[in-house]
Amino acid sequence: MVDLAKVDAYLDSHLDESLAELSTFCTQPSVAAQNWGIVECAELTAEMLRKRHFDVKITSTGGAPVVYGERAGAGSKTLLFYNHYDVQPPEPLDLWVSPPFEPTLRDGKLYARGVSDDKGHLVSRLYAIDALLSLIGELPCNIKFLVEGEEEISSLHLKDFVLANQDLLAADGCVWEFGGVDHCERPIQYLGLRGICYVELSVETAHIDVHSGLGGSIFPNAAWRLVWALNSLKGPDERILIPGFYDAVQAPSTRDRQLMALLPEAADEYRQRYGIKEFLKGLHGGLELQLAEVFEPTCTICGLTSGYQGPGSKTVQPARASAKVDFRLVPDQTPEDVLNKLRAHLDTQGFDDIRIDFLGGEPPARTDPDHPFVQMVVDTAESVYGTKMQVVPMVGGSGPSHPFIHHLGLPVVTAGIGYPGQLAHAPNENIRIDLYLKGAKHIARIINEFCNNP
Amino acid sequence: MVDLAKVDAYLDSHLDESLAELSTFCTQPSVAAQNWGIVECAELTAEMLRKRHFDVKITSTGGAPVVYGERAGAGSKTLLFYNHYDVQPPEPLDLWVSPPFEPTLRDGKLYARGVSDDKGHLVSRLYAIDALLSLIGELPCNIKFLVEGEEEISSLHLKDFVLANQDLLAADGCVWEFGGVDHCERPIQYLGLRGICYVELSVETAHIDVHSGLGGSIFPNAAWRLVWALNSLKGPDERILIPGFYDAVQAPSTRDRQLMALLPEAADEYRQRYGIKEFLKGLHGGLELQLAEVFEPTCTICGLTSGYQGPGSKTVQPARASAKVDFRLVPDQTPEDVLNKLRAHLDTQGFDDIRIDFLGGEPPARTDPDHPFVQMVVDTAESVYGTKMQVVPMVGGSGPSHPFIHHLGLPVVTAGIGYPGQLAHAPNENIRIDLYLKGAKHIARIINEFCNNP
Repeated sequence: MVDLAKVDAYLDSHLDESLAELSTFCTQPSVAAQNWGIVECAELTAEMLRKRHFDVKITSTGGAPVVYGERAGAGSKTLLFYNHYDVQPPEPLDLWVSPPFEPTLRDGKLYARGVSDDKGHLVSRLYAIDALLSLIGELPCNIKFLVEGEEEISSLHLKDFVLANQDLLAADGCVWEFGGVDHCERPIQYLGLRGICYVELSVETAHIDVHSGLGGSIFPNAAWRLVWALNSLKGPDERILIPGFYDAVQAPSTRDRQLMALLPEAADEYRQRYGIKEFLKGLHGGLELQLAEVFEPTCTICGLTSGYQGPGSKTVQPARASAKVDFRLVPDQTPEDVLNKLRAHLDTQGFDDIRIDFLGGEPPARTDPDHPFVQMVVDTAESVYGTKMQVVPMVGGSGPSHPFIHHLGLPVVTAGIGYPGQLAHAPNENIRIDLYLKGAKHIARIINEFCNNP
Repeated sequence: MVDLAKVDAYLDSHLDESLAELSTFCTQPSVAAQNWGIVECAELTAEMLRKRHFDVKITSTGGAPVVYGERAGAGSKTLLFYNHYDVQPPEPLDLWVSPPFEPTLRDGKLYARGVSDDKGHLVSRLYAIDALLSLIGELPCNIKFLVEGEEEISSLHLKDFVLANQDLLAADGCVWEFGGVDHCERPIQYLGLRGICYVELSVETAHIDVHSGLGGSIFPNAAWRLVWALNSLKGPDERILIPGFYDAVQAPSTRDRQLMALLPEAADEYRQRYGIKEFLKGLHGGLELQLAEVFEPTCTICGLTSGYQGPGSKTVQPARASAKVDFRLVPDQTPEDVLNKLRAHLDTQGFDDIRIDFLGGEPPARTDPDHPFVQMVVDTAESVYGTKMQVVPMVGGSGPSHPFIHHLGLPVVTAGIGYPGQLAHAPNENIRIDLYLKGAKHIARIINEFCNNP
């Protein structure tokens, strides 16, 4: 067993080197939605693993390649890290204080697209590994990395990769791509992810746009068709109107409610951070707000586009309109079922002119909060953060954990560098340097303890 | 009286010079909505008038300047031409075969943004004047030009200009900015314009976009708010739901129905040209389609914008959303009344978070189809087009004719170079050269006959 004080001292004194490596990583764009810089970023990822003497394999998937790396350790148990090298699109560009692919240090934070989601997590894990290798010359357990490049577009090819490589990926526990502290600086253990079904709805009512003075009274209007179709999905009471949508929804268990009740109040934080005036469904805060946030499925319009969007007025009747819509799913909903029910609903409502393009989906999945691996990760956090890690049975985001949990049979935990102000998916995405360091210290402890864990 | 055969011969032999002047005019961008090239284009307009020895005055309005020109003639009556030098935005640029501000001749057509709406009309009128001046050395009547630069943004300052300059603009008849033939090559006399009330509806639900995994269940979503607010304005049955919206609507008179019944069938033309599969409100064609097209008010979504609109998926909950909406008005609706009722309706429906920006409006206005000036314009068309001009009591488009008809007391007629394939307001806007020539011949006849008209 390594001396943790020495690990911490190593990490404290090598911070600048690690941040320099992270900055290089973030300078490389890797926008999966725009297929921008993906192959280059996969190669950069592989190079970082090779530098630590991992055996690395880059596998084509039909989409972005998967980077896999493994290095044997002293103990017999195997820890699998899941990360991704792709990032969200940087738009809207004009809201960034410094350019998204020019990592910039300001006020104890590092700003860049992807610095938090997910490049900072990956590099902080390599940083922890550097500390252990430097101090004991070997890893205390076998370590595997699975780093994909399509997480931000619903991990289109990851499930197939996991199913086709179950022996390669065999392990005893998995650390997920994210983790971090809440707005009270308390580290959080996220144990479940909602599923997702992301679609683009589009409609074309004519070959070309028409002068609105001509077509307004008698020609169908693509923007109106889209508005009415969307309105048929959900009304202002937030109830999703697709028949059977809620059929498979499991209400939170007694244990879930018990764990959720321990979470700190989030309402004021949300009001301040995002400028939210009122929550939906008459919610004000407390347990009911926390439960609604993660145990209810959603139907979110992520984008709308049609016709003229420039300054001033243009009197045109649009021939085309489209919306990006994401459904977040809770156990035991599946994206396939939601997709089928959505099509049937639109047809029934007279919207068979609305085309659905499925842009990706994942089922929800959860890890048992009482698993011993979860307990170890929770326990090792305390000496880093000075406070007990909070166990959250379910979180609002999505990810491809389903095949890890249900096919590889792994308990999946979170540990990382995130915080509520990280602006993931938004302009000015950033990490806090102090939390970057703490995240690395926690990962070093997890690797160190892993072989002692029952 | 001039010899019309000589006028026609002059126009036939000077076509290339006139098209060269028109191309120069169209090379100058003048997008009112984007305040692009407006001042430069006003100066170019003035220069073209000065070349014909018009006294020209450029007047600031607070927006785009008005270009006014007058030249005395032999007779005592005064003919006023109303035109505009501004054009619609050229977007979407990728759908243009040749660049919008590089006028290009192809297959007997001249392509450019604004070539039809409205620069070709203005230059064809100057071309007719050139013919008369060349043949008789003077104009047979006094001619005035009022050329504004905000027609495509609802003529924001024109009404004030007309009211403040009633003596300057005093005349006996007015030729409107457009005119032309229908899909059967029959020249059309358009005698009424619908009004318009153009608004931007917008909503902001948070300071910044939020990851949809976090906000989807509990934060308000700007795109959803906009969809529901729009849906409250009009349902799929096309009935506009703003209380009192239809109160001032005048049904078409017996004379209107009589004139409209003489119009050729338009349904197949619309299906072919625009790719329309079905008309709204169960309409199939015939008189009822013609009446619905122009005698009913509309609520048209001209544009939608919110959140992520790029390729693929981005899981974000938009903080902002907006729509461009135009209402076309029929007598006796007014934009002010519609605006007030829209605000009241949104408030009543719980959408007081939806902001309304008024981007411009004009009341509807009509000229009596039995006025002698109208008859003269109709009669002079026949020798040019070889067929009788069709009188249309009302048209679907809008324009600032209200102050000309109701304050200056003028009969307003249309005569010009347009045709159904001109793609006004759309990519690949164009004019047909044969119709450009015919339009100029008709204008020359109108000027020639004007002083003999009772």
